[in-house]
Amino acid sequence: MAGKEDLKLLGMLVSPFAIRVRMALSMKGVSYEYEEEDLFNKSDLLLSSNPVHKMVPVLIHNGKPLCESLVIVQYVDELFAGPAILPIDSYKRATARFWAAFVDDKLCPAWIGILKETKTEDERAEKVKEAHAAIMQIEEAFAKLSEGKAFFGGDSIGYLDIVLGSCLFWFEAFRWMFDLEIIKSSEAPLLAAWAERFGETAEAKKVVPEADEAVQYAYNLRAAYAAAAAAAATR
Amino acid sequence: MAGKEDLKLLGMLVSPFAIRVRMALSMKGVSYEYEEEDLFNKSDLLLSSNPVHKMVPVLIHNGKPLCESLVIVQYVDELFAGPAILPIDSYKRATARFWAAFVDDKLCPAWIGILKETKTEDERAEKVKEAHAAIMQIEEAFAKLSEGKAFFGGDSIGYLDIVLGSCLFWFEAFRWMFDLEIIKSSEAPLLAAWAERFGETAEAKKVVPEADEAVQYAYNLRAAYAAAAAAAATR
Repeated sequence: MAGKEDLKLLGMLVSPFAIRVRMALSMKGVSYEYEEEDLFNKSDLLLSSNPVHKMVPVLIHNGKPLCESLVIVQYVDELFAGPAILPIDSYKRATARFWAAFVDDKLCPAWIGILKETKTEDERAEKVKEAHAAIMQIEEAFAKLSEGKAFFGGDSIGYLDIVLGSCLFWFEAFRWMFDLEIIKSSEAPLLAAWAERFGETAEAKKVVPEADEAVQYAYNLRAAYAAAAAAAATR
Repeated sequence: MAGKEDLKLLGMLVSPFAIRVRMALSMKGVSYEYEEEDLFNKSDLLLSSNPVHKMVPVLIHNGKPLCESLVIVQYVDELFAGPAILPIDSYKRATARFWAAFVDDKLCPAWIGILKETKTEDERAEKVKEAHAAIMQIEEAFAKLSEGKAFFGGDSIGYLDIVLGSCLFWFEAFRWMFDLEIIKSSEAPLLAAWAERFGETAEAKKVVPEADEAVQYAYNLRAAYAAAAAAAATR
């Protein structure tokens, strides 16, 4: 596809899901308009473009909205020229899709739960356990999928690198916030080394924020929830 | 892809997820060996082929396992000649993937929850409410996606038809078991009419079981859980 494309991305600086789309567009060398959303005050455009989930990212392409990061990244890969994001080989592509779904279904609910489930230490410990179990399964997968190369995608980053790599700055934030390691180099040495390499890529440097942005966002979020809870208690 | 393919599917008669794969293979006219799994006594082949989820369906293609129904259906579509299962147009393909994820993330947990969450009437009522809410969103989507045609996929069944249609015989089972309608023709007339048409397709008639098979399976499952609970209580 060539010519002038009208592309607008609704995102959020610290959303791993929006970062996936930004990395995909960056890999394809496609320029786009970016609008930062405030999740406490969502824009009408976000609400009308994604009425089902009301979440970022939304990519609006020539006026037509696309939602859900994995769906959007595949769309970007299929539509635009440039390096392939998903593997070309059908079996490898299926395997990348399988593990992307695993990251979203098993790992993400666990690490997002660490952030959200602030009720008891036990609840957080349970989420930490789930996150570590998922990481150990991905460690095993990396050994097979990378075939001894630097990334899931081979010599350069691909679909699964983007999908998992977009979460890494949050893991770094967890070190500061909870003194907690999600990827322990003693237990998941391959993923720990991969995470270092991922952070050094030009694509990651371009769109992945510093961990302290995530820390700041998390503290703001907690303060907002605490204020809402206090207001509800005195109502 | 031509020539002799070595294809083995590990499935279960009443698994909508396995039925999706059987329908996809049937649409492509591909022959395969089928092995029925007993979920109370999973085969070594299932456990070694899908060590992550230990679930059907697993498609083993020339010795290499593929897991997760949405991943497998896309693989089958990409690899084999015959009618396209996913839409050819990139935007329509993205939309079909979005709604397939919606069915699996929102509708399936709700209707499977109706079956599983037998603790209280309130819990079942909550799952029924979630299922109805999801159906109403899919009703709206059908109005847009079908463009006035018979199926999500147009004049014949496609990806989303398979993904949602594979669940319909369970909804029929719920009528018998709970006197419960998941797709109410008064509220979701388009989907109700679509469901009738889906059931009449040659593809559905070939692999979708009768609702009484699902009823029987559900009663067996409940009896097994009740026996396990009774055994635990007297331990």
